[in-house]
Amino acid sequence: MDADEAARPVARRPGGRSARVRAAVLAAAVDELTEHGFGGMSSARIAERAGVNRTTVHRRWPHLEDLVEEALLDRAAVAVPIPDTGTVRGDLRLLLHEIAEYVDSDARRGTIRALVADSARSPVIGAVVSRVWTSRFGRGTEVVARAVARGELRADIAPATILAAFTGPLYVRLLITDERIDDSVIEAVLDVGLDGARRSAAAAASPGAGRSTA
Amino acid sequence: MDADEAARPVARRPGGRSARVRAAVLAAAVDELTEHGFGGMSSARIAERAGVNRTTVHRRWPHLEDLVEEALLDRAAVAVPIPDTGTVRGDLRLLLHEIAEYVDSDARRGTIRALVADSARSPVIGAVVSRVWTSRFGRGTEVVARAVARGELRADIAPATILAAFTGPLYVRLLITDERIDDSVIEAVLDVGLDGARRSAAAAASPGAGRSTA
Repeated sequence: MDADEAARPVARRPGGRSARVRAAVLAAAVDELTEHGFGGMSSARIAERAGVNRTTVHRRWPHLEDLVEEALLDRAAVAVPIPDTGTVRGDLRLLLHEIAEYVDSDARRGTIRALVADSARSPVIGAVVSRVWTSRFGRGTEVVARAVARGELRADIAPATILAAFTGPLYVRLLITDERIDDSVIEAVLDVGLDGARRSAAAAASPGAGRSTA
Repeated sequence: MDADEAARPVARRPGGRSARVRAAVLAAAVDELTEHGFGGMSSARIAERAGVNRTTVHRRWPHLEDLVEEALLDRAAVAVPIPDTGTVRGDLRLLLHEIAEYVDSDARRGTIRALVADSARSPVIGAVVSRVWTSRFGRGTEVVARAVARGELRADIAPATILAAFTGPLYVRLLITDERIDDSVIEAVLDVGLDGARRSAAAAASPGAGRSTA
């Protein structure tokens, strides 16, 4: 226990024990955050959950907010790579499916909902969460920017605003109405976001259409 | 103090003292919820904030969740009437402006964020909040349903899904990125939601367009 490599300045075997300790502590931090909120987090409990020495946590992450940020950024990076299928509908479909799969877990939904409330109550966690969301939305914004560059999406609206037309309805279901996000929801969101909600615009985009969504 | 009319079975002067007591208690309940969350609410503090007898609160609202529900439904009803300007863009613009104005207060943003977290942590408050959102979104869904009936919006997508394309981007700003919602944001959301994000769809809807959004 007292030989935790993470407590030493340099990890000797990359991907070895140090990496496992880091992964265990990051996972424990997210669990702790979900259960107790940022204000109720305890580094002692995080160490216990991760099965490491308390000093390991303290030395590597002297401030809990740094640990939370690293844990959230790490998780976001693993969960949502940037799609590049060649068409805007394909890219956005993949992006929305990745978001839907990521939040298709009560624990992850709980984490995100806890972050929303915590970031309103604490400026420190608010700043951390803001950086995490910026990183996360940066990936989606890049998908939109690529489609604008290919001439598939309109260039007169900010990419972040275009992106929110697709991700917004998913976050409404995640944070507000607490509804599952299935394939038919994603296709409907793509239909409206790409071709608009007007009857005329829809008819122009797909003549003779009238696809039913159960 | 001990002559609170609200504690009597029938209010003698509608719009009189009983109505004032009710309004004061409902406002105090929302403040209490915002500050302490549902789990930390105290009926004694609510009575104190409202300047009424504790028994007044207890007799009229034996369960705090009923008080919370009444307070939130009451507030939602006052804040967001159903727009009916005659055109879908006008109706939706009014709806989005009303939402934006309603949340243009740190206290109200705090309340909504607290509710999002509380409804994940408590099934009781979750059910209350779900009824409040259903009522609130019901008004917007009616705006969309009227536009579908007039032939302005497509009928092949569920009205709630169409509505979320317009309200979703606002809730992303309110709950996640914590950005202000100004007129240019609302116009951009209307542009994308009505005519779609595709360059071709946008060109078809407004030929020669290329409106810049700063």
